[in-house]
Amino acid sequence: MTDTGFKTGKAAIIGGGVIGGGWAARFVLNGWHVKIFDPHPEAENRAGLVLENARLSLPSLTDFPMPPEGKITFAQSIKEAVTDADWIQESVPEDLSLKHKVISEIEKETSDSILIGSSTSGFKPSELQIGAKSSKRILVAHPFNPVYLLPLVEVVGSDGTGAEALDCACEILRSIGMQPLIVRKEIEAHIADRFLEAVWREALWLVKDDIATTAEIDDAIRFGFGLRWAQMGLFETYRLAGGDEGMAHFIAQFGPCLSSPWTKLMDVPDLTDELVDKIASQSDAQSANYTIRELERIRDRNLVGILRALKERNWGAGTTLRDFDKRLTQADSSDMSSQIDSSKPMRMLDLTVLPAWIDYNGHMTEFRYAQVFSDTCDKLLMMIGMDSNYAANIGSYYTAETHAMQIDDVGADEQIYSTMQLLMADSKRLHVFFRLQAADDDRILATTEAMYLHVGRESGRVCDAQSNLIENAKRIADAHADLPQPKAMGRHVGQRK
Amino acid sequence: MTDTGFKTGKAAIIGGGVIGGGWAARFVLNGWHVKIFDPHPEAENRAGLVLENARLSLPSLTDFPMPPEGKITFAQSIKEAVTDADWIQESVPEDLSLKHKVISEIEKETSDSILIGSSTSGFKPSELQIGAKSSKRILVAHPFNPVYLLPLVEVVGSDGTGAEALDCACEILRSIGMQPLIVRKEIEAHIADRFLEAVWREALWLVKDDIATTAEIDDAIRFGFGLRWAQMGLFETYRLAGGDEGMAHFIAQFGPCLSSPWTKLMDVPDLTDELVDKIASQSDAQSANYTIRELERIRDRNLVGILRALKERNWGAGTTLRDFDKRLTQADSSDMSSQIDSSKPMRMLDLTVLPAWIDYNGHMTEFRYAQVFSDTCDKLLMMIGMDSNYAANIGSYYTAETHAMQIDDVGADEQIYSTMQLLMADSKRLHVFFRLQAADDDRILATTEAMYLHVGRESGRVCDAQSNLIENAKRIADAHADLPQPKAMGRHVGQRK
Repeated sequence: MTDTGFKTGKAAIIGGGVIGGGWAARFVLNGWHVKIFDPHPEAENRAGLVLENARLSLPSLTDFPMPPEGKITFAQSIKEAVTDADWIQESVPEDLSLKHKVISEIEKETSDSILIGSSTSGFKPSELQIGAKSSKRILVAHPFNPVYLLPLVEVVGSDGTGAEALDCACEILRSIGMQPLIVRKEIEAHIADRFLEAVWREALWLVKDDIATTAEIDDAIRFGFGLRWAQMGLFETYRLAGGDEGMAHFIAQFGPCLSSPWTKLMDVPDLTDELVDKIASQSDAQSANYTIRELERIRDRNLVGILRALKERNWGAGTTLRDFDKRLTQADSSDMSSQIDSSKPMRMLDLTVLPAWIDYNGHMTEFRYAQVFSDTCDKLLMMIGMDSNYAANIGSYYTAETHAMQIDDVGADEQIYSTMQLLMADSKRLHVFFRLQAADDDRILATTEAMYLHVGRESGRVCDAQSNLIENAKRIADAHADLPQPKAMGRHVGQRK
Repeated sequence: MTDTGFKTGKAAIIGGGVIGGGWAARFVLNGWHVKIFDPHPEAENRAGLVLENARLSLPSLTDFPMPPEGKITFAQSIKEAVTDADWIQESVPEDLSLKHKVISEIEKETSDSILIGSSTSGFKPSELQIGAKSSKRILVAHPFNPVYLLPLVEVVGSDGTGAEALDCACEILRSIGMQPLIVRKEIEAHIADRFLEAVWREALWLVKDDIATTAEIDDAIRFGFGLRWAQMGLFETYRLAGGDEGMAHFIAQFGPCLSSPWTKLMDVPDLTDELVDKIASQSDAQSANYTIRELERIRDRNLVGILRALKERNWGAGTTLRDFDKRLTQADSSDMSSQIDSSKPMRMLDLTVLPAWIDYNGHMTEFRYAQVFSDTCDKLLMMIGMDSNYAANIGSYYTAETHAMQIDDVGADEQIYSTMQLLMADSKRLHVFFRLQAADDDRILATTEAMYLHVGRESGRVCDAQSNLIENAKRIADAHADLPQPKAMGRHVGQRK
């Protein structure tokens, strides 16, 4: 293992359930050869299902080809699994004597230079090390389900675990795309599971007392603070709630609530000046390289990205956004005629360039132009009467061919708009010219000429659209008939100007 | 207010801090006229800052134009703010007698048909209603910061609040893009803040006992379970951990841990058969319309979307992904010559069509083709020697012009790859032809012809690239010189075949 570049190796996975199978999938997809030992009769089948899920998702996270998949083998014994391994991961049930037995078998077959990571949620490394021949190789490497996607792995050593072992473990875990977090003092349940445990217990009370159902509790999480926590944790989030006056101010405001009967369990550390100072200075060390204002904007951009990702998948908070869009389109429809103006192309979308749309040059990325033109086309289609019902049952317009020119740059947070000139509409085709312009000075940033063909839902073939769509499209084309022909119309790539 | 379409109105915001300002921003951007009353000398300035943030983010969530912004006014009195209001939102500090005073002033000036929503985190509606002339209009509408982005709002009534009032409140809140969650029984801190309180308290202990710093605690959240909770809550997540055997099985496994000393606070409801059954059957009602396998894939797709959104923003778990990509490219570089083959176009990217890339026709969306071609070009540029250092200091290639043809469809989860044929390379230009093909039968899905120009970083003008880039590009172009010219090369939109 070296600090740079990409190395693979051999991993032994002892215990192949949801967690062990997830480890196996992560290693294999990162090019490691993996041997799994699990005496459960369904082990091979279960690990296969996890791997299948992982293949469908993990490679989508990289923008470069992953290394070739490693080989996965099911071993008949711990001995067979661990021989020649570069990393051994133990994920057997949470039973300390079972874990001791597994570790002792591993010790018989391997050199003590090979690290043993345990997936235990609760045990401390010093507990795992009881009775071991060599403590220095034994540590906790606690992952989160699904192991092949979530980056976090809590790495915990005891006094007996070598610092070198922790470093080496972190490097191996990083090489398979994980985010190791070294826990500085061993404690039952490490860090994250203590929070999960606290929430779980509170949730059990709420269900028991009929305050909320499981679905309502889940909604209370995923439509609200769950979205925050995907990108900033507890303290950075609250730092923003404290505003410019900072973390100590937030604690002063929020502190008294701690003694209100807001949860079932009330033992609270005293908010001494010392503790307040400690938190405030740690929070400064963590976040003070950004101003509150910068952090707010970072948070908002992250939330927009997360919410839009969920919107694309029509799930959770993303479904709320889709429902809201439906309201907007209901309000937006039926006013087509008011928008037709024969003196100029039709203004279609008004947008702000999102920070996520910016490339390494600081300008809006090429394919985002295509996205705006595609959204503009969707709006045109909606305008002429192609709603989701039509698309699901009758047909829709396919893009056959486009020619795009990028003329000028635009940076983050700038206002832009798109326009549409309908060059020709007949029963099967729409020939359209789009322009993307800067809102402040109307300069043209990009143009796209496009040909759309109407394709029948059932036949999959080009066919006539329904007459109302054709009529609506022709009304616009007629209004646009006397507009000057765009210079770039009919151009091919590389043509002299 | 009606159940369909888009209506706006007038909102009075009493208390204009982070929460009140967030309400004001959400209402105004949704076309409502807003009057804010807040005696704080900085109130107008503070609300303005929140509105500025909201303008940069909220409109990015919709795919359709928002209604024109409403007017925002700062009132000199509660009376002035609430007159003519259709909705009154109280967001003053958490002091019950202050809230009573505000409510009583509102009652003097308005009809009791106008609802009063309170942003209180902790008080029950029956507590707010003490001393009020009319209880039925008073309810909790508890939002989450940032109010203009997070959809969740907990709506809580007491026995004295009319069911009609709750319905009407939900409809108004939905009309401004929120996700109302009616809390079925009033309780201190409603639902979500009970969880936040439990986590906050546990976090204070961890900091106090030097187990973790605030930054480490935040990492333990945002690299792990925070990502889960942005899309599924506690119970649906654990349903998946239970696997096919279901929720009752999960509780049987995880239940005993509740009595381990995993958190500071140990009062736990007894896991009676009755409670286990209740949770299992509520979980069925919530999630059983999907199989575990389907839910796993939904979860994974959501996580991929969230992680990729964070990757675009280079934040949190997204930074982990970027670091990992760097490792992949380090492994990938220096092998250009092994990839040059004069007998065929160069194979560039191998990809799986993501579910998020699919349009309403079930096919890969137009602009995603552009994205793949753009990524393919990035790889070409990297291959000839344009790294981030070159882009930051010397220059980079800009897309001047493209011509794209969409030839065949491809659906979700299909494997695709892109190829690149370098038609011409000189000191300033790259003329490239890309194909996107299906991995199983090599059929061509789309093509793009593109012209790239080298632009200097400082000058912003077209200029010669560095000689090593030119040489590398020419080596590929020479190797490709005898490949057949693509049929679509030089085509313009609408040209006869």
